Amino acid sequence: MPRTVYVNGDYLPESEGKISIFDRGFLFADGVYEVTAVVNGKLVDYPAHMERLGRSLKELRMDWPCSREEIDAMHQEMIRRNDLREGIIYMQVTRGSADRSFNFPKPAPAPTLIAFTQVMALVSNPNAVTGVKAVTTPDLRWARRDIKTVMLLAPVLGKQEAYEKGAHEAWMVEDGFVTEGTSSNAYIVKDGKVITRGISNEILAGCTRRALFRLAKEHGVEIVERQFTPAEAYAADEAFLTSASQFVMPVVEIDGRRIGGGQPGPVVRRLRALFLEEAGA
Amino acid sequence: MPRTVYVNGDYLPESEGKISIFDRGFLFADGVYEVTAVVNGKLVDYPAHMERLGRSLKELRMDWPCSREEIDAMHQEMIRRNDLREGIIYMQVTRGSADRSFNFPKPAPAPTLIAFTQVMALVSNPNAVTGVKAVTTPDLRWARRDIKTVMLLAPVLGKQEAYEKGAHEAWMVEDGFVTEGTSSNAYIVKDGKVITRGISNEILAGCTRRALFRLAKEHGVEIVERQFTPAEAYAADEAFLTSASQFVMPVVEIDGRRIGGGQPGPVVRRLRALFLEEAGA
Repeated sequence: MPRTVYVNGDYLPESEGKISIFDRGFLFADGVYEVTAVVNGKLVDYPAHMERLGRSLKELRMDWPCSREEIDAMHQEMIRRNDLREGIIYMQVTRGSADRSFNFPKPAPAPTLIAFTQVMALVSNPNAVTGVKAVTTPDLRWARRDIKTVMLLAPVLGKQEAYEKGAHEAWMVEDGFVTEGTSSNAYIVKDGKVITRGISNEILAGCTRRALFRLAKEHGVEIVERQFTPAEAYAADEAFLTSASQFVMPVVEIDGRRIGGGQPGPVVRRLRALFLEEAGA
Repeated sequence: MPRTVYVNGDYLPESEGKISIFDRGFLFADGVYEVTAVVNGKLVDYPAHMERLGRSLKELRMDWPCSREEIDAMHQEMIRRNDLREGIIYMQVTRGSADRSFNFPKPAPAPTLIAFTQVMALVSNPNAVTGVKAVTTPDLRWARRDIKTVMLLAPVLGKQEAYEKGAHEAWMVEDGFVTEGTSSNAYIVKDGKVITRGISNEILAGCTRRALFRLAKEHGVEIVERQFTPAEAYAADEAFLTSASQFVMPVVEIDGRRIGGGQPGPVVRRLRALFLEEAGA
């Protein structure tokens, strides 16, 4: 059965989900998005995603496409109409459609809001049992990675490179240090401590990252916020990534080097279990 | 009368020009474009634009959406159906529509090809008489500016900043040197010599830039390819920009400093005249 998608207030069969060729998301990548996991038909970490959406819109001086309550209701309606038990809801807001001109259109057009669902095995993701492989690649992105925009061509190229090398994710490297994965935050574990880059314009402030920090604190796992190099990652006891659709995911090989014997280690297994428990899995 | 736009083989009223919400141009900025000027109903510098399109597609490992001959015919048909005498044709190719995943979809979907026209006063552009103002702004863009992609949010923000400061263009600055304008290449003139940054991944190889180099050579105007700073630009005799839709455009003020007395100078006036002559104006 085809999915039901959402486009500017309408619920439509996915084949009818269309936007104007003049949409600024299409012409200028002038748009932002969020991806929220759904487990057992319930949204995971949803308030954090909406808070970040608000920040993204504000940084780009874009209007909310409708009220927060309407967006909440849309998420629930998308779960209901698609009978979504486990997977994700993708939503994107753009500055709307107007004849093409780089500057913000005046008067401001109505923002575009679209959403669709994807069914995914999040809790019983087989990758979490084996762990995944990562490669490193130069970070080609623009300077405002803290805003969750659709300026994603560099991550697209990085992910494609990873896939072609038999890996699952690419960790991007800038000035000798890992920034983050193409669609995830990056972590290593050494001597029981979790190490991950601090928040700045250089990476996205992951919602799952934030949840992880809270869980780690509650359960006495130390997290150190600092940069690390690929060489330090190769020598780590464990490595992992976080994202809304992967939760906490072990990384067992980086650039062909096995990490911690090539098996998910105790710290990442514990953190994943804590996250799953909280997500209601 | 509404424009006729082109979407994947169909000529449609502009209100019906739509693409899927799953188009990778919309979700990932996974697309490239070209803008070709039309003067007296004829395309200007068209072969150079198609050559660059081919390079952009190749760099991103995207397929041509159809044959070069079909794209040529589409341009002519767009001029005819829109009775376009003077203005531009915008065309965009994306990797096509597929369920959202960062890596390239397999099997590869059909690329998306869209086009539309804009009526503009190119030859008698009043800005060319007075010259335009520019401001400088940090260059926030990604590392592959040599590919003409729709990863344009940094230029959008730069252009908006320029407009809000009463200027027409923003010259982007990286490591202390001007890279280029948000939608144009940047030049200064000192002691009769034109100075502009050399071609690299850091700027787009402008088609109008290339035409300018040829005309300058034919007419004995020396062009020096090297970086210049904003301070050097403030002290220049003249400044100008080039783009497909602005041709050669005098810049008479940068960051509030008048350049060469605040009037278009002899070198830029001559180069513009040469360009217009060749464009058949």
